[in-house]
Amino acid sequence: MAEKKLVEDITSMEEDFAKWYTDIVKKAELIEYTSVKGCMVIRPYGYAIWENIQRILDKRFKETGHENVCMPMFIPESLLQKEKDHVKGFAPEVAWVTRGGDEVLEDRLCVRPTSEVLFCEHYANIVHSYRDLPKLYNQWVSVVRWEKTTRPFLRSREFLWQEGHTIHATADEAIEETEKMLGVYADFCEKSLAMPVIKGKKTESDKFAGAEATYAIEALMHDGKALQAGTSHYFGDGFARAFDIMYTNKENKKVYPYQSSWGVTTRLIGAIIMTHGDDNGLVLPPAVAPIQAVIIPIAMHKEGVLEKCRELKTLLEGEFRVKLDDSDNSAGWKFAEYEMKGVPVRIELGPKDIEADQCVTVTRHNREKELVPLSNIVESVRSKLAAVQNGLFEKALKNREKRSYKCGTTDEINSVLAEKGDGFIKAMWCGDEKCEDEVKEKTGVGSRCIITEENPVGNSCVCCGKPAKHLVVWAKAY
Amino acid sequence: MAEKKLVEDITSMEEDFAKWYTDIVKKAELIEYTSVKGCMVIRPYGYAIWENIQRILDKRFKETGHENVCMPMFIPESLLQKEKDHVKGFAPEVAWVTRGGDEVLEDRLCVRPTSEVLFCEHYANIVHSYRDLPKLYNQWVSVVRWEKTTRPFLRSREFLWQEGHTIHATADEAIEETEKMLGVYADFCEKSLAMPVIKGKKTESDKFAGAEATYAIEALMHDGKALQAGTSHYFGDGFARAFDIMYTNKENKKVYPYQSSWGVTTRLIGAIIMTHGDDNGLVLPPAVAPIQAVIIPIAMHKEGVLEKCRELKTLLEGEFRVKLDDSDNSAGWKFAEYEMKGVPVRIELGPKDIEADQCVTVTRHNREKELVPLSNIVESVRSKLAAVQNGLFEKALKNREKRSYKCGTTDEINSVLAEKGDGFIKAMWCGDEKCEDEVKEKTGVGSRCIITEENPVGNSCVCCGKPAKHLVVWAKAY
Repeated sequence: MAEKKLVEDITSMEEDFAKWYTDIVKKAELIEYTSVKGCMVIRPYGYAIWENIQRILDKRFKETGHENVCMPMFIPESLLQKEKDHVKGFAPEVAWVTRGGDEVLEDRLCVRPTSEVLFCEHYANIVHSYRDLPKLYNQWVSVVRWEKTTRPFLRSREFLWQEGHTIHATADEAIEETEKMLGVYADFCEKSLAMPVIKGKKTESDKFAGAEATYAIEALMHDGKALQAGTSHYFGDGFARAFDIMYTNKENKKVYPYQSSWGVTTRLIGAIIMTHGDDNGLVLPPAVAPIQAVIIPIAMHKEGVLEKCRELKTLLEGEFRVKLDDSDNSAGWKFAEYEMKGVPVRIELGPKDIEADQCVTVTRHNREKELVPLSNIVESVRSKLAAVQNGLFEKALKNREKRSYKCGTTDEINSVLAEKGDGFIKAMWCGDEKCEDEVKEKTGVGSRCIITEENPVGNSCVCCGKPAKHLVVWAKAY
Repeated sequence: MAEKKLVEDITSMEEDFAKWYTDIVKKAELIEYTSVKGCMVIRPYGYAIWENIQRILDKRFKETGHENVCMPMFIPESLLQKEKDHVKGFAPEVAWVTRGGDEVLEDRLCVRPTSEVLFCEHYANIVHSYRDLPKLYNQWVSVVRWEKTTRPFLRSREFLWQEGHTIHATADEAIEETEKMLGVYADFCEKSLAMPVIKGKKTESDKFAGAEATYAIEALMHDGKALQAGTSHYFGDGFARAFDIMYTNKENKKVYPYQSSWGVTTRLIGAIIMTHGDDNGLVLPPAVAPIQAVIIPIAMHKEGVLEKCRELKTLLEGEFRVKLDDSDNSAGWKFAEYEMKGVPVRIELGPKDIEADQCVTVTRHNREKELVPLSNIVESVRSKLAAVQNGLFEKALKNREKRSYKCGTTDEINSVLAEKGDGFIKAMWCGDEKCEDEVKEKTGVGSRCIITEENPVGNSCVCCGKPAKHLVVWAKAY
């Protein structure tokens, strides 16, 4: 812990959290800005995190019976308009293609902000009998939403995501799917991203345009703000009716099927930064870190050092994602570089270590240093990575618990926020949208989701005092 | 060979090749049309082929030192215009976004038809010193080109591809990269897609807009037409000059770097269909087949059959992509279905087989039937898949050799085409664009690429008779 701060040019979290965030995304080489406002280049190190997220999630989607497809990126305006709530929600924020080559388009095309209507059109073509159900589809693509204010990963005009779209014979099956995929997301965030999340249901005012119900996972960032990390929607048969999707059931009757959709985005990378990062830069959970261990030669010019480092790399790379940095930068520069990049384990190896048949390991998140016998390095790295993964989760969970408060009135909310700073506020709600708005107005926190938990704070609405229906988590949010 | 034709509703190749092709893409459930002209849904079975292509190529790209990134899908018109040949080539065929939300865009955005200018803008930001070179980048995305006539996989307004973009300190390095990646493509097509290709250089009139040289691989389809299966471009320092990308070299001088780009697309799926398919449907090379072996229970209701099939599946799925079809369709229906879908090996297992501790295997491409002892099934499937992969390549190569002709005059070309049908014509060329155009006009075949091969047909231009400079492969093309 006595090690001196190696990276000097990053703003501290305390000083300016927003600046700290953008310093990291730039200096850890996750993104670079472009001349297209609100769109970014995801650089190799950032994209490798996304590839790891994709690989793990895609496997889980396939294990739960889903298949990947690819829909067009364009939606004709006439198609978008078929489901009235959906178009109302999305039309104001889409990009319009009005010209193709030298042709002015009669039916202009929007660049997909989400693909429900394309899946619906397709389902209408291919779903005819109960034998055709369910269809459990997913796609990995980018979508466009014309946001006014943008921030890398958190809110951009184009972002990468996966969107699952499923169609089922019964409402029960579709609801089960909606909940199952929310569970997959929550488990993925906790196990792979080491990020604790709360599962809940969105209020009416906050649900997806066209959905009967929207479920979400919410995570708490370092600064006490909430981040919606994934959503799962149940559509009932509303889209099926709007798009005339019908199938013949076992009783030979034509009926409407039921649908769901669910998605997570590159926003998760922003969530990782703001959950685990510190004033020295990024801190990555081993499960998605592009480099899990970096080997840094000490006194590289000395005989035998580089050879031994290469041996070590060969030994480790069968099991881990390992990098040996044999560039001619100084060891100090390298320490700072891989701290900034959040590599979970650093291995230092110099002439003295070689003599003693050992190496030095440092774990990024707590800077614990250890001397490890070279004969034991594979096991040591394995257990360290597991410990880091757990350690990050425990640390984040502790932070969330510390910043979770129960409040009975809006005054209480205000005094908690003033005294302790932002966080998750658990408070009861009567279910009236007016109260929801009023809480936001009076305190600045909005409803994140309705949760089912032992009622902790009486039975009166935090706003109007009337009998409450729901326990709600409130917070300021990204 | 005596087995009767199981799929009755597909047009035969002889009768109508174009209809045969679209029958397959629809009936093998590779794609479905949408209401967006020229854009398609790639269905699970089609997308799984693409995922296999991606997996194999992505591994090869990474093994050759490339990293994945992701650029925006939009290009501001002002950025597109910076390299004059490039904009001239692409501007007429792009889709224009002119509106975002309620905002009319001052600098309209085109949906990327290719991303050279975005990579150049990025390189100008991040390349400053010789230490920053080379950058070996790739991205897997979709691009849009406003084609007038479209056909699934072969020519569509949106298509999936990968685009490699690299930047190097020297021209030699960039040329080496351009050639190396052409080699990777050729090797991939031959080894994984079982599709023989010719490597060559495009003539001036046919090169990529903005390139100094374009190299391509050309394959011959069943109907004797050529298909360009991949391209690799050398840019010299032309883009670097247009985008003001400079780096400080080891001698501390500011100089321009050199670039390349290279790509293959979902067109490869069309190439697979037209190289290996037959009148019973798709025939897939095992390396990219979503299902390598399908198990079909015979007399499924009989005791023990399904259990044994499941055992067999468990046995095989550790090593192969296997499907057991235990649906209640008839065995005959299933035979036809998986023939249509081009599954390389079919395994039939019924009560009599179980009694004799054996199963029946049929290989799709030659319909060879064999009785295989169950104890030997893993080895048998392994060697059959290898044999199919080789067999497909040999068959395709034989077809190409049979349809390759050497001609000394345009009259000879015409009589060969009339007598033997379409194919690759090898003929000499003086290098004059007028002759290139005239050959096309007189015979219908265009130059596909310049190859370096022992001169087979004298030293006079096939058109003007003057001294020739190049041996060219000519063909009608997709």
